[in-house]
Amino acid sequence: MKQLLTSLLLLSFFTSFSQNSIIGFSPDNVNKELELEKAFEAKLNPTNLDQWMQKMSAEPHWVGTKFGEENAKWIQSQFKSWGYDAKIETYHILFPYPTERVLELTGPTKYTAKLTAVPVEGDPFTAQGDALLPSYNAFSTDGDVEAELVFVNYGIPKDYEELEKLGISVKGKIVIAKYQGSWRGIKPKLAAKNGAIGCIIYSDPEDDGYGQGDVYPEGAFKNKTGVQRGSVMDMPTYPGDVLTPGYAATKDAKRLDRKDAPTITKIPVLPISYEDALPLLSALEGTVAPESWRGGLPITYHIGPGPAKVHLKLVFDWKLVPAHNVIATLKGSEFPDQWVMRGNHHDAWVHGANDPISGMVALMEEARAIGELAKKGQKPKRTLVYCAWDAEEPGLIGSTEWVEDHKKELQDKVVAYINTDGNGRGFLGAGGSHSLQAMVSEVAGTVTDPQTKVSVKERKIAANMVNGGDDSFELYALGSGSDYTPFIQHAGIAALNLGFGGENDGGEYHTIYDTYPHYKRFKDPNFDYGVALANTAGRITLRLANADVIPLNFTQWHATVSTYLGEIIDETDTMRKGVENHNKLVSQNAYVLAADPTKEYKKPIKKSIVPFIDFSPLQNELVTLKETITVFQEMNTSKLSKDAKNELNKKLIQAEHMLTSEKGLPRRPWFKHQIYAPGFYTGYGVKTLPGVREAIEQKNWKEAQEQIEILTKTFKNFNAFLQDMNVNLK
Amino acid sequence: MKQLLTSLLLLSFFTSFSQNSIIGFSPDNVNKELELEKAFEAKLNPTNLDQWMQKMSAEPHWVGTKFGEENAKWIQSQFKSWGYDAKIETYHILFPYPTERVLELTGPTKYTAKLTAVPVEGDPFTAQGDALLPSYNAFSTDGDVEAELVFVNYGIPKDYEELEKLGISVKGKIVIAKYQGSWRGIKPKLAAKNGAIGCIIYSDPEDDGYGQGDVYPEGAFKNKTGVQRGSVMDMPTYPGDVLTPGYAATKDAKRLDRKDAPTITKIPVLPISYEDALPLLSALEGTVAPESWRGGLPITYHIGPGPAKVHLKLVFDWKLVPAHNVIATLKGSEFPDQWVMRGNHHDAWVHGANDPISGMVALMEEARAIGELAKKGQKPKRTLVYCAWDAEEPGLIGSTEWVEDHKKELQDKVVAYINTDGNGRGFLGAGGSHSLQAMVSEVAGTVTDPQTKVSVKERKIAANMVNGGDDSFELYALGSGSDYTPFIQHAGIAALNLGFGGENDGGEYHTIYDTYPHYKRFKDPNFDYGVALANTAGRITLRLANADVIPLNFTQWHATVSTYLGEIIDETDTMRKGVENHNKLVSQNAYVLAADPTKEYKKPIKKSIVPFIDFSPLQNELVTLKETITVFQEMNTSKLSKDAKNELNKKLIQAEHMLTSEKGLPRRPWFKHQIYAPGFYTGYGVKTLPGVREAIEQKNWKEAQEQIEILTKTFKNFNAFLQDMNVNLK
Repeated sequence: MKQLLTSLLLLSFFTSFSQNSIIGFSPDNVNKELELEKAFEAKLNPTNLDQWMQKMSAEPHWVGTKFGEENAKWIQSQFKSWGYDAKIETYHILFPYPTERVLELTGPTKYTAKLTAVPVEGDPFTAQGDALLPSYNAFSTDGDVEAELVFVNYGIPKDYEELEKLGISVKGKIVIAKYQGSWRGIKPKLAAKNGAIGCIIYSDPEDDGYGQGDVYPEGAFKNKTGVQRGSVMDMPTYPGDVLTPGYAATKDAKRLDRKDAPTITKIPVLPISYEDALPLLSALEGTVAPESWRGGLPITYHIGPGPAKVHLKLVFDWKLVPAHNVIATLKGSEFPDQWVMRGNHHDAWVHGANDPISGMVALMEEARAIGELAKKGQKPKRTLVYCAWDAEEPGLIGSTEWVEDHKKELQDKVVAYINTDGNGRGFLGAGGSHSLQAMVSEVAGTVTDPQTKVSVKERKIAANMVNGGDDSFELYALGSGSDYTPFIQHAGIAALNLGFGGENDGGEYHTIYDTYPHYKRFKDPNFDYGVALANTAGRITLRLANADVIPLNFTQWHATVSTYLGEIIDETDTMRKGVENHNKLVSQNAYVLAADPTKEYKKPIKKSIVPFIDFSPLQNELVTLKETITVFQEMNTSKLSKDAKNELNKKLIQAEHMLTSEKGLPRRPWFKHQIYAPGFYTGYGVKTLPGVREAIEQKNWKEAQEQIEILTKTFKNFNAFLQDMNVNLK
Repeated sequence: MKQLLTSLLLLSFFTSFSQNSIIGFSPDNVNKELELEKAFEAKLNPTNLDQWMQKMSAEPHWVGTKFGEENAKWIQSQFKSWGYDAKIETYHILFPYPTERVLELTGPTKYTAKLTAVPVEGDPFTAQGDALLPSYNAFSTDGDVEAELVFVNYGIPKDYEELEKLGISVKGKIVIAKYQGSWRGIKPKLAAKNGAIGCIIYSDPEDDGYGQGDVYPEGAFKNKTGVQRGSVMDMPTYPGDVLTPGYAATKDAKRLDRKDAPTITKIPVLPISYEDALPLLSALEGTVAPESWRGGLPITYHIGPGPAKVHLKLVFDWKLVPAHNVIATLKGSEFPDQWVMRGNHHDAWVHGANDPISGMVALMEEARAIGELAKKGQKPKRTLVYCAWDAEEPGLIGSTEWVEDHKKELQDKVVAYINTDGNGRGFLGAGGSHSLQAMVSEVAGTVTDPQTKVSVKERKIAANMVNGGDDSFELYALGSGSDYTPFIQHAGIAALNLGFGGENDGGEYHTIYDTYPHYKRFKDPNFDYGVALANTAGRITLRLANADVIPLNFTQWHATVSTYLGEIIDETDTMRKGVENHNKLVSQNAYVLAADPTKEYKKPIKKSIVPFIDFSPLQNELVTLKETITVFQEMNTSKLSKDAKNELNKKLIQAEHMLTSEKGLPRRPWFKHQIYAPGFYTGYGVKTLPGVREAIEQKNWKEAQEQIEILTKTFKNFNAFLQDMNVNLK
C-alpha cells in the first residue's frame, strides 16, 4: 500500500503543478489566488474543531434554550476576535414544547410506550435526564385520539396506492409508519389526506438499527430505545416561522392565528423507538404486509386495521421563543457590495455533535483562517458574510426569517450562498446551482482527501465509477433539508451545499446519542474531514470573493437542465405505457384471474390514459439557449476592462434570479425557483423543473401544459438576459 | 363478481366448443378423444384424494421404514384393484440414519443446540416423538470437528466471491449458511472446496419463517424450532444409490466402498432451526455482513471468523435398506410396446402430506379413473405405466436405480415420462421437453381452474402478464429435484413435470410440520387442485397414449433452444464487459480509492479477459435445423397410412434421445442430455445447453469451444434424424 500511495502523491503533485487556469480568474491572478488558498489551507487546525465541538455540544441547545443562546453569543465573540463585524439578529418564532405525550396500546393487549431513550455506558451526555428534549415531532398539532392501528410502510404515496389495491382504508384510523423513505413530514400529511386521525413514526431496526450494524454503545447504530426527533412542519408549502409566511418574524410582526397556520399538521404525530413499536406492530392482524414493506423486527408484519387499538395524546406548550442568528461580516476590499455568503446552523435537537456542530466548527475554522489572512492584509475583494443560524431544526426558521427580512438586499448583492451542515467521513457531496458546477469541480480537484491523499474530486469519481457511474464530477440538485432553501428557492440566489460522508453511518440522527463521544468514535475521529470541509468551502468562498469574473458556467447548466427535461419526457412515456398495460390487463380480466381469491383484494379499474404532452416549447427554447450560451462561454472575459468586468459581475449576480418566477409554484408561492424545489410529496427529495414535473406526476395535464408555458417564458427571459450580456460584451 | 364469473363461464364454453383439432390426432379421432377425456374427468373424486392422504401420511415413512413398505404394498393393491398389473421392484440402497448429532457453541459463550422441533397444538402428528426422523442431512459424512464459525450467506459461488473481496477465508473453519439460494447440497460442496471442515445450514426466518407470514400452528410458516431435512448427496455428479453409479443397486450388485463414493459429502453437514442458529450467529463478530446477506433475526449479522467457536459431531448408521418401487402397467390395446409413463414418489422425510403424498394421491385417482374406463372397454392404445417411487428424498434413488436397471427397454419403448410430486393451490407449473410444449399448452386450455373457472392455461397466462411477462404458455426447462431426472437427463426420454402452486406458501417443507392438518389448512383444503392435477396429467397421458402421431412439435423446441443460445451469447458479452470494466477500475486504482480504509478489504487485481468465442457452428446449425423442422411440421401426417404412422411413431420415440451424447457432460458422464441439466453449482437449478454454458461460466474457454463442437454435432445428428423422417414421409 505504501508504494501505491507514493506514486499517487506524485501523480497528485503533477496534476496540481500543471494547473495554470482557474475559471473566473485572469491569467495574471491565477497564481496569486492559488497561493492565497495554500496559505489558507496551511492555517486550518483540527484541534480547534475538536475543542469547539466539545464546547458547543456539551449541553442540549435547541432554539430558545439558554445554552443555545450562550453558543450564539460565543460564536459572535469568536468571529469578533477574528476581525469580523459580528452581530446577532433575533426573530421571535412559534416553537412547541411537548408537555404531555401518551401512547398506549389499549387493546387487545395493553402496553404503555416508554418514549424515553436510555443513557448508555461510556457516554455521560446521554445521562443528562430532564435536560434532554423529550422525543417528539415539532409542529405536530395537539391531539387526543384513540383508534385502530394500520401499518402503512413508509407512509408515502406509493404505499397508499398499495393499500388501495388491497382494499384497506386508513380513514378514522391511527397509522404507524417507518421513518425513512421520505422526509418525515410527508407521513402525517399523507395520512391526514387519506383520512387518518393520528400518526406514529418509528425507526425500524432494518433501516438504522441492528439491521445496519451494531447498536450504540457497541456500535454506531440506533439501539432499541433511540428516537429520532424532527420537524413535521409542512415545509414543502413554506418553511420558516409558521405564523409569518413570506415575511420576517420580527417582534411586532403581524402573526397568523395558530389555528390558521397552514404548515402545522392536521393530525397528532409522535416518533417512537423500535422497542415501543414492537408491541404495537405485534398486535396487528389482517393482511400480511407486502414483502418490500417488512422490516427488521422478529415478527410477521401485518397491516391491520386492528385489532390493535391505540390511544395517542399530545399536548404542546406553544410559545414564541427568540431565534438568534449570528451574522459576521468581513468587508470586501474592492467590491464591498458584492457578498459571498457562508452558513451553517448552530441549534440542535439535543447535543448535536454531528448535526450541526461538526459542520459549524468547520465553518468557524474556515472563517478564522480567512480572518487571520485578512488581518495580514490578504483581504478578500468581495464581502464575506458568515452566518450561524438558529432554529434550523424546527423548520429552517432562523435562515428563512433572515432571508425574508433582507430579501431585496440579498438579491442585489449576494454572489452565492454556500451551506454546510453535519459533516462526516468519506466522499465529497456537493449540490447546488449547476452554473457553479465547473468552479466546484475545479476546487474539488485541489483539495486532498485525508485518507487516500488523492484529490477529493478523484476519490469521489472513483466511488462513482465503482458504483456503476461515469467519471464525471457533478453537483446534485438541491431539494430541501438545510438552510440553503430560503436562498436558492425563495430568493433566487445561487447556492451550494457541501459535506463529506459515506463512511460514517449511524443511527444517532436527532437522538440523544448524537454526542461528542459518538462522533469521535464513529464519524470523523481526528476531524480530518472537518478540515477538508473547511478547505473545500473556504477555497470556494475565496474564489467567489476574488474572481475577476464571477465563475459561472452555463454550458454545464444547460446540459443538466436538458437532462431533466429528457427525464420528464421519458417518465411521461413510461406512465403512458404503464396505464396502457394496466388497462389492457383490466380488459383481459388478468388481475382478477391472477389474484388469490382467498385473500383481500380490490378489483382494479381502468385508469385515465396519459395524453401526449407538447414539450416542444421547452425543447425549442433549450436549443435557442444553447446557442446563446455557446456565444457567452466563448467570450474571452479576461480581456475586458475593469469597468466592463464589474458591469458583467453585477449582471451575473442576477443570473440565478432569472430562473425564478415571482408567482412561485402552484399552491406554494413561497417556492419561486423554476429548476429546483423540494417535492410536494417527497419533502427533502428534490423535484427538478418542479412545476412541470409535479403536474405530470399528479396527472394534472392542464396544469402541466400551463407550467410548460411558464417555464418556457422563464427560459426565454433567461435567454434574453444572457443575450443582453453577449451584446454588451461584444 | 358473480356476473363476471358467468360471462367467463360462457367464454370458456365457447372456447372449448370451437376446438376441432388436437395435435397428433386425425380429424376423425378428435371428438372421440375429447369425449374420453370428458368421461375421465367426470370420474375424478376429491374425497378419494383426501382419504388416501390421511391413510398414507398417518406415520413417518422414509425409505426403509415399515410404514413406507406398507404404503408401497397398499398402493400395489390399489392398482391391482383398478385392473393394473402391479408389482413391486425392490433395490438395496445405502441409507444413513443419524445415531449421534451434537452441535455446541463452545466459546465465547456456551450453547447446546436443541436439534428438535416441538409438537404444536392442533396437530397430533407433530407429537409422535421418537417415531419422527431426527433432523439431518442425508449423505453428510460422519465427522467430529471444532473450529471458529464463519457466516457465508447462502454459501453459493457469488458468496465466496464476496468473501474473497473482503479478504475472509473459510479454510479450517466451520461455515454456517442460510437454506435457500440454491439446492442445499451445493453448500457443503462449496464449503469443502474452499477448505471448510464443517457446514451448518439453518432456515432464516426471513426466508420461510415469520418474515414470510405467521408461523405454525398460527400460520403456515416455519416456527423457530422447525428444521428442514434433506439430502446433500452430490446429485449434480450423479443421483441414485451412492455405491452403484450408473447401474442398478440389485441385491448382488458390485458396490463401491463407501469411502470411495464420490457423492457423499467431504465434510459433516447439519441443518438447524433459527432458534438454534440465533446464539451462534449472535456470537459472531468481525465484518458486518453485506446488506443483501442479512436475514430476519433481530441481530446485526457479522461474518466472523469467530470468536464464536462450534463443535459439530455427526455419526450415522450406514446400512443397506430396501427401496420399494411400485410399477403398475395397463397394457395398450394397439401399441403395447409403446409406453406412456407416469410417476410420483411415495417416500417422505416425515409424514409428507404435501411432499409427496399430495401428488401421489392425484396420480392414483387419475390411474383409478383410467382403469375404470379401461374396464368398460375404453382401453388406451399405448401401454400406461404408473410408478410410485421409493427413496426419492435421499437422492432420487428409487427411480434412478429402476431407470438404470431397465434403460435399454425404456429407451426403445417410452414415449414420455410424466412426473408429479407435492401439489398445491394456484397456477399450473409445467416443465419439460420443449417438443411437448404445444401438446401441454393444448391440454392446459381444456382443464378448468377450480377457483376462477377459466382454463388453467388462461389463469397461468394472466399471472404471467400481471408479473410483467407476455401472453404465451411455456414449459420451464427441467433442472433436477424430482424423479424425471433419470428419465430425461440419463436415458434421454422426453419428460414433463407438473404441479400447481403459488398460493400455498409455507415453511413445512421436509419438517415434522408437513402433515395432513397443515395441508388441509394451508395448501389445497378441498383437494380441488389435486383433482385439477389428475385431470391435467391424465389428459396428457391419454393424449400421448391415443394419438395417431405422437404429439411432438419441434417449432417451439427450436425457438426455445435458440433463446438459450442467445442467452449464452449475451451472458458472454456481459462477462466480457464486466471484466473490461473491472480491469479499468483496477488500472485507475478506483477500487482502492472508493474503499473505506478503516475496514477489512482486499485490493482487487486484474482478471483475465473474456475471449470472443466462435458460436457460429451452433448458429448455422440452428438455421439448418429450422429449415428441416419447417418441412417436418408442414407435413400432413393424418393422410399417412397406418403403417407409416407406426413407423413414424417408432422414430419419434427416439427424438429426445437424439439430443443426448453417450459421453455425457464433462466430469459427470451420467448426465447425457445436451439441452437440460441441473447446474453443477446450482443443484436443482437448470442449466440449459449445459456443456457450453457451464464451461463459459467457469471461464474454461477451451472446453467451451469443445462443447460447442459437441453440441453442434448433436444438432447435426438431430437434423439428419429429422431429415430422414422427412424423406420417408414424402
